[in-house]
Amino acid sequence: MSAAPPADAAGAPEVVLVNGSSAASLAPLDRGLHFGDGLFETIACRGRRPRLLDWHLERLALGCARLHLPPFGADELRQEILALARAAENSIIKVIVTRGSATARGYGPSGREKPTRITLRYRWPDENPDWSTHGVRVRTAALRLGENPALAGLKHLNRLEQVLARAENSDPQIAEALLFSSSGLLVSGTMSNVFIVSQSRLRTPRLDRCGVAGVMRRAVLGCARSAGVDVAEAALRAEDLADAQEIFLTNARVGIWPVRQLDARALTPGPVTRALQIRLAPLLEEPPDA
Amino acid sequence: MSAAPPADAAGAPEVVLVNGSSAASLAPLDRGLHFGDGLFETIACRGRRPRLLDWHLERLALGCARLHLPPFGADELRQEILALARAAENSIIKVIVTRGSATARGYGPSGREKPTRITLRYRWPDENPDWSTHGVRVRTAALRLGENPALAGLKHLNRLEQVLARAENSDPQIAEALLFSSSGLLVSGTMSNVFIVSQSRLRTPRLDRCGVAGVMRRAVLGCARSAGVDVAEAALRAEDLADAQEIFLTNARVGIWPVRQLDARALTPGPVTRALQIRLAPLLEEPPDA
Repeated sequence: MSAAPPADAAGAPEVVLVNGSSAASLAPLDRGLHFGDGLFETIACRGRRPRLLDWHLERLALGCARLHLPPFGADELRQEILALARAAENSIIKVIVTRGSATARGYGPSGREKPTRITLRYRWPDENPDWSTHGVRVRTAALRLGENPALAGLKHLNRLEQVLARAENSDPQIAEALLFSSSGLLVSGTMSNVFIVSQSRLRTPRLDRCGVAGVMRRAVLGCARSAGVDVAEAALRAEDLADAQEIFLTNARVGIWPVRQLDARALTPGPVTRALQIRLAPLLEEPPDA
Repeated sequence: MSAAPPADAAGAPEVVLVNGSSAASLAPLDRGLHFGDGLFETIACRGRRPRLLDWHLERLALGCARLHLPPFGADELRQEILALARAAENSIIKVIVTRGSATARGYGPSGREKPTRITLRYRWPDENPDWSTHGVRVRTAALRLGENPALAGLKHLNRLEQVLARAENSDPQIAEALLFSSSGLLVSGTMSNVFIVSQSRLRTPRLDRCGVAGVMRRAVLGCARSAGVDVAEAALRAEDLADAQEIFLTNARVGIWPVRQLDARALTPGPVTRALQIRLAPLLEEPPDA
């Protein structure tokens, strides 16, 4: 079966479904391959339940609308994700939705495409538990992100910038790289959003020019607001990062990672980070849509 | 066979090879799909010969080096292209090279990937012959391209910007859309490079921040230099475009398309455009590597 990954591949998924079928393979004409013409979601599943599923599906639907992708069968996808999550105690489910096979040569969609849905379930990865408690080491990427409001916020398939930023450094002790945009704005990590705390004010980059609007970023913004923290999305630059007393990263799987080192600078996970980790903890183990 | 396109699809390829095999399909773990982690070439084949094949393969090799893709078997690919071209009088061959199937989850390459090569042969498209002689109608795209020197010049698989720019307008009489970058620089069309003529000086946008360094752009730059035309790559803005007496587009298939209308402005294909079309004609029908 062509869809099966090689048995010895590290990190290979346990399940691969193409349009719901484990026997299906991907058409070489798929516009996801040719142009990155599609979107994805990476969903953390704990206790056999997908975490923040509604928000993942909401972001996917928003992305489809912005890219003018045809409807992809949201109910069917939800059932598929729930069934896959139920079959393993903890897992990561990645969903890719593309515009489907090309019906003509060239970039322009014909409007007659039928979307392709690829669903993969991976084992929950082993990870150093210290990273959540004591924090992670982070570096600043040399690569800068291009700015395009038409794509900003979306979790689309054009990810060469993230590939190149990750490839700048292969030290497994460096958990993440922070990225600035071409005009010098702080954006995010390669696979996480970033928050900074300065004089008890919590700030995270506005994502109106580039970056992905993460579901865990949304959860943390909500937690912070309900806790009465002074929190806002803002245009942040290198000097804001340098002035920050606390820095932390968010992502759907890890929740909050305090940053304990940024390039050569040591940081201590501070009170705002710790308070938000405590408030977020129930959500990480118990999805709100349970 | 999963690799076969639907028989009724307009513009479907006549031949699809995945790693040289017509029976193979694409792995759903391919990083070309997940991240657009790869490159492509679109090669015009006339009289059973691929035009400018050396330059296509050179650009592909350069792109592989810049993206740190593993070697993809350039000799094998050359033979494959030559064989496919021989089997049809005129055709378009598209080659996609990706980093291959993911060997781990996440953006970072493991270094253990084996590249995937997908080769597609399409029929030579029907096209209004007037477009080469009388010129094409062109509009300015609303979308602006993000700027990233790390990707500039490469024909990589992250093409959502081009998809969205094409989707802005579906009038088949508008042949192309011109794109500016986020900082206001003129870059290219969605599938072509652009040249402007002002006071007998020929200029084309520098491609150090975004855009694709087209093989036909290279051929036209060479033609112009050998004809003694004052020609240079430059940073061009909207006012340069507005001041231009002649505008033309280049692409591997069409050679030179004069622009006869840009948005509401009418233009007449001028002497520099005509002279270059004449100089380019032999190359379009007789590849230099024959």
